[in-house]
Amino acid sequence: MLTYGMVGGSMSGFIGEVHRKAINFDPRAKMVAGCFSTDDAKNKQVQEVYSVDRIYSNYSEMAQAEGQRPDGIDFVVIVTPNSTHYDIAKHFLLNGINVVCEKPLCFSIEQAEDLERIVKEKNLVFAVTYTYTGYTLTRVMKEMIAEGKIGNILSVNAEYIQDWLLDEVTSPGSANNLSVWRKDPKLSGISNCVGDIGSHIENYIQYVTGLKIKRLLATTNTFGQKLDLNANIIVEYDNGANGAYWCSQVASGRLNDLYVRIYGDLGSLEWRQEQPDVLKYTPKGQATEVISRGTSYIKENSASEARVPSGHPEGLFVAFANIYRDVISDIIARKNNEPFNKFCSYPSITDGLNGVKFIHAVINSAKNNSGWQEI
Amino acid sequence: MLTYGMVGGSMSGFIGEVHRKAINFDPRAKMVAGCFSTDDAKNKQVQEVYSVDRIYSNYSEMAQAEGQRPDGIDFVVIVTPNSTHYDIAKHFLLNGINVVCEKPLCFSIEQAEDLERIVKEKNLVFAVTYTYTGYTLTRVMKEMIAEGKIGNILSVNAEYIQDWLLDEVTSPGSANNLSVWRKDPKLSGISNCVGDIGSHIENYIQYVTGLKIKRLLATTNTFGQKLDLNANIIVEYDNGANGAYWCSQVASGRLNDLYVRIYGDLGSLEWRQEQPDVLKYTPKGQATEVISRGTSYIKENSASEARVPSGHPEGLFVAFANIYRDVISDIIARKNNEPFNKFCSYPSITDGLNGVKFIHAVINSAKNNSGWQEI
Amino acid sequence: MLTYGMVGGSMSGFIGEVHRKAINFDPRAKMVAGCFSTDDAKNKQVQEVYSVDRIYSNYSEMAQAEGQRPDGIDFVVIVTPNSTHYDIAKHFLLNGINVVCEKPLCFSIEQAEDLERIVKEKNLVFAVTYTYTGYTLTRVMKEMIAEGKIGNILSVNAEYIQDWLLDEVTSPGSANNLSVWRKDPKLSGISNCVGDIGSHIENYIQYVTGLKIKRLLATTNTFGQKLDLNANIIVEYDNGANGAYWCSQVASGRLNDLYVRIYGDLGSLEWRQEQPDVLKYTPKGQATEVISRGTSYIKENSASEARVPSGHPEGLFVAFANIYRDVISDIIARKNNEPFNKFCSYPSITDGLNGVKFIHAVINSAKNNSGWQEI
Amino acid sequence: MLTYGMVGGSMSGFIGEVHRKAINFDPRAKMVAGCFSTDDAKNKQVQEVYSVDRIYSNYSEMAQAEGQRPDGIDFVVIVTPNSTHYDIAKHFLLNGINVVCEKPLCFSIEQAEDLERIVKEKNLVFAVTYTYTGYTLTRVMKEMIAEGKIGNILSVNAEYIQDWLLDEVTSPGSANNLSVWRKDPKLSGISNCVGDIGSHIENYIQYVTGLKIKRLLATTNTFGQKLDLNANIIVEYDNGANGAYWCSQVASGRLNDLYVRIYGDLGSLEWRQEQPDVLKYTPKGQATEVISRGTSYIKENSASEARVPSGHPEGLFVAFANIYRDVISDIIARKNNEPFNKFCSYPSITDGLNGVKFIHAVINSAKNNSGWQEI
Repeated sequence: MLTYGMVGGSMSGFIGEVHRKAINFDPRAKMVAGCFSTDDAKNKQVQEVYSVDRIYSNYSEMAQAEGQRPDGIDFVVIVTPNSTHYDIAKHFLLNGINVVCEKPLCFSIEQAEDLERIVKEKNLVFAVTYTYTGYTLTRVMKEMIAEGKIGNILSVNAEYIQDWLLDEVTSPGSANNLSVWRKDPKLSGISNCVGDIGSHIENYIQYVTGLKIKRLLATTNTFGQKLDLNANIIVEYDNGANGAYWCSQVASGRLNDLYVRIYGDLGSLEWRQEQPDVLKYTPKGQATEVISRGTSYIKENSASEARVPSGHPEGLFVAFANIYRDVISDIIARKNNEPFNKFCSYPSITDGLNGVKFIHAVINSAKNNSGWQEI
Repeated sequence: MLTYGMVGGSMSGFIGEVHRKAINFDPRAKMVAGCFSTDDAKNKQVQEVYSVDRIYSNYSEMAQAEGQRPDGIDFVVIVTPNSTHYDIAKHFLLNGINVVCEKPLCFSIEQAEDLERIVKEKNLVFAVTYTYTGYTLTRVMKEMIAEGKIGNILSVNAEYIQDWLLDEVTSPGSANNLSVWRKDPKLSGISNCVGDIGSHIENYIQYVTGLKIKRLLATTNTFGQKLDLNANIIVEYDNGANGAYWCSQVASGRLNDLYVRIYGDLGSLEWRQEQPDVLKYTPKGQATEVISRGTSYIKENSASEARVPSGHPEGLFVAFANIYRDVISDIIARKNNEPFNKFCSYPSITDGLNGVKFIHAVINSAKNNSGWQEI
Repeated sequence: MLTYGMVGGSMSGFIGEVHRKAINFDPRAKMVAGCFSTDDAKNKQVQEVYSVDRIYSNYSEMAQAEGQRPDGIDFVVIVTPNSTHYDIAKHFLLNGINVVCEKPLCFSIEQAEDLERIVKEKNLVFAVTYTYTGYTLTRVMKEMIAEGKIGNILSVNAEYIQDWLLDEVTSPGSANNLSVWRKDPKLSGISNCVGDIGSHIENYIQYVTGLKIKRLLATTNTFGQKLDLNANIIVEYDNGANGAYWCSQVASGRLNDLYVRIYGDLGSLEWRQEQPDVLKYTPKGQATEVISRGTSYIKENSASEARVPSGHPEGLFVAFANIYRDVISDIIARKNNEPFNKFCSYPSITDGLNGVKFIHAVINSAKNNSGWQEI
Repeated sequence: MLTYGMVGGSMSGFIGEVHRKAINFDPRAKMVAGCFSTDDAKNKQVQEVYSVDRIYSNYSEMAQAEGQRPDGIDFVVIVTPNSTHYDIAKHFLLNGINVVCEKPLCFSIEQAEDLERIVKEKNLVFAVTYTYTGYTLTRVMKEMIAEGKIGNILSVNAEYIQDWLLDEVTSPGSANNLSVWRKDPKLSGISNCVGDIGSHIENYIQYVTGLKIKRLLATTNTFGQKLDLNANIIVEYDNGANGAYWCSQVASGRLNDLYVRIYGDLGSLEWRQEQPDVLKYTPKGQATEVISRGTSYIKENSASEARVPSGHPEGLFVAFANIYRDVISDIIARKNNEPFNKFCSYPSITDGLNGVKFIHAVINSAKNNSGWQEI
């Protein structure tokens, strides 16, 4: 049984609850410590609801204390605003504690490289919770591409579009409170939309295809705000193919629409986050196949990942739970000096670093007349 | 904090895990007792994984012991094969313990009526886990109909079709082990397909529309098996309208396809279990509206039920968790002598009884040349 | 070059124009005669617009005159209300003229049998324009079933639902003029909804599967009108399988939704009229294949039927044109004493007779407490 | 009654037949002349099938002869390969004959400007058959945007993807004969994919939104061929918004997938060519509405355009026929010195010129390191 702690994640927020419930799917880990809020009352509220043994009023104290206890936490989950990820993560790493961190990893490339360096030196687990890599069919997609089912990739089209900040364009300041920190450069960094959701596109495509972005160019739109609300990006991969990425928070009627299409010379694959249990596969010259999660015709190792029978929706929590299962398995394997070498596994510190580089390249291109930015 | 126990639900089964994880969404209840299997090793396995305080080798001992302990469980979850529901439920009820039971409730109408009588006498909570009533948009649908959004109901069409027993038709005996007990009248009762999934249709329509079935007629098909694998049913409701129900376990390509359409004189509503976050609504003479869960335009009380933001799939576990939230709230309310009067809440013992009556009427009609059967 | 005439089909109606434009797709037939309306002005209007050589003030005169001319029409198209089909068709047949008639064929089984007898005696072409048999993918479906792609048929589910008469339920008399004759038993016969659209279901299933209905039972709903607006039907085929048919003209939001699903022990097929260029095929135990019209992977003889490249919608007129192509080919073949033996071809007089039998059986069952009616 | 002639369009080709059948929908125009092929036998074949009065062995002779006859054709339809459009069109214009020309209009901007100049001088009708502007719901979309239903446009995403040239990537030279001329710069001009289908995107967006492209940047991919098979384009409109366009002929499983989404600050609209009878509209903050063609709730003037009742697919021929109806109406109006001023009408010579400018800008940007190209 592993134990874990959390920084951030008061009851009034959304994402902390998702992480806690997702870890709860795995009887191998238990929450025993936390610094859930700088507001003492909110901090205690989580402690009471979840019967948490130890709470702390600040994260540096928590990192130090947990690092020194013989029964200190095995890993910490960081679910605070972007601006604080770097400092919090660094504290726990330096105290020898594995880290699971929300994305985007941090503000600057230097910070991200610093964290990557520490992780490697200390040989710790560092996961960045790019949620959508946890869906079973995302992993089936990754395997199918690796097996050559669609051949050499010719073209990629991926978008992540929402409409929840549209009110900011028509009536600035009216969007709900959740949005306030996202629009503030001090809390969100150099980008809002690209950082928040564009980075999911970059990560998802890299995860399933293995393609590296060589360079990219972009336009962004702020529509009167300080930070971007919409961006169009053209990327060039190391294999010479191009991809078009689009992210937006002002696309009326779109809720959380990550939609990914990958076209190879032997076939294509298509997946949409709002229907995660369906994967569309078209072998060249044949009818499109609608692959459903959990069915007998999906190859064995992936099918075995399913916690939910076919035809029953997997849902957001299971995607997170699948990532945590791998994180927990990796930490246990390291404790037991056993190898953990899973083809489809959780996004790492390097994925987090790539995300930060991507965000910077997009914003730089947009600022420089949409010229190419090498990555 | 409530405590609960479980009968059935070894690690190798599916549904016990679903119930446990769903209850885990609610920090207000904790599993402390169980009789997970008649196989001692399997029983202990669940105990270890979940750190369960007390295990029992048989349910009657468990019911008695828990009923007598001052800190005995607040409710028991019954996830055993259909044939055993009645006896197990009765034991716990007679020991004053609230019950959550998988569907169908039991074999005979007499058994169901017996349980209903005890529940009323003892004033206990008895929930039957018709899963699909737990989806947020099912509840929105129920509210919209109650508010008159589709007017007087003219016609209903509902189906629940799967293909997992198709192998039994082409190669009898080859389907997976899960199916064995379903095809055995001793374990499943008088019906397989109607009992297993047809009963979900009956419950779902009754739940969302409030219509009572006055009479019905049916055909069933066994395709060489002992029990039904497919059934077509025409019902007549108390308002004079008709509905067509279809359930099948031999419908190639259909996984878990509960698909419900309700047509009124002012509009229509449509919901499909495999896309539970979408509800289609057509006001008479207007364009079809695609309503998404979690959005601002869904009326307040229902929207507030959402644990997951719009655009992120809710999934099977959340549907179960929503039912358990209401069960737990009701038990807590009763302990505190507070009222619990929620418009959209969990399916009750009476719903379970209606399900048993429905199954009997369908099988009787099919045996009697598809003549009408009053309910 | 064949010549043809038309009875009915004034410019203000809809269906006459569809027939004319559909025949226009085939340069092998030209309209030279007509009796388009009993209203002289309307009759002349069509003559002028289409430069028609010969118009007649009544159909019996037209049948006689055209039957006697050496250059008389090769076939007549009957697009008048149902009540007049029998008499008009009989006049042309007795004058040795081939007939294309709208469905349903006529009012009584006796009339239909009478027409069938004359057709056989005179060895004439008699086509009943069940439109949906003309779509290319309907024919692909028929071929796939004949080739055994879905094996032995276990279950059928088919519906044809619309909402255009819903106003008649809420505000009787308010629906548009087109609907008036449909609701009048003198013009429509014993049934409105079953006759108008239910008969399409019966024909479509028979066309693609070859299954014969042995018996059926039904409920109908008039919602205060003289004739049925909604019907639920359970059929039993000669192979022992059951099918559920549903037709409705009061299903809010449904426009012209003929939706057909056929489940066999080796696979299933699904087709929807509003997306006629898509056919869904699920081989047992495999992913659903989305077959598109006009693609290279559809077998040769069927693919060759396509007038429109893949990805471009075929549309209503092409469906009609495909039926007419076969009618014209058959007439030409007979003129040349050549065989015409096409597997997928136009619906015949016998199909028309079967339609009339079906309508009568449904209405009779509904009147007789939904008892089985042999066919 | 107008008369028309055609250049190109032998029976073995596809597009000539489409134009002929589409014009046949309108009894106001009749084909009386043609130069269907440089192959004499093929030329005569069309003449025979369609009973064409006058055929010519070359187009310059045809243009001159028809221009001089008192009963010469009212308009000519040009359906030859791109390389010949300019010269043919010029001949007919100079002889005072109205022109309907396939797209793209011609090779160079100079040619296009030359044609535009002549059209204006001679005050002739010149239509470029961008097919998709003919669909009824395209026109409804145009009207809704003009009425302000989606407010100020913030972002556009449009793609046109096919897979029919994918074989050229894996096995160069193997694709069907139809593709040969498209890949040859002498016949196709500077671009294959952008010219053939990318230009449809440009025209469609301009038609429905009225937005002008100020500048654009692009990447193209040839995958070993001489001309482009795939292109990604970012445009900047005159209102400051950006749009992303993608065209491809190597997208496995995509047949003719023109898919257009337009996001404004008050709502969004979405249309897909393969389902042309459906238009998705999301007013800001409300549920998505699925608008169907031909229904009562679509505003009057647009609904009146429908030749086909709701729920019956309109199809490719009707789209063409709608364009021709407007062309014919305009020619008749000019003959009668009446005004023809229809809000949603056929694409003009200026649209054709814009298309040529677009193609050049895309190819130039791709050749210049994807830098911005002003238009």
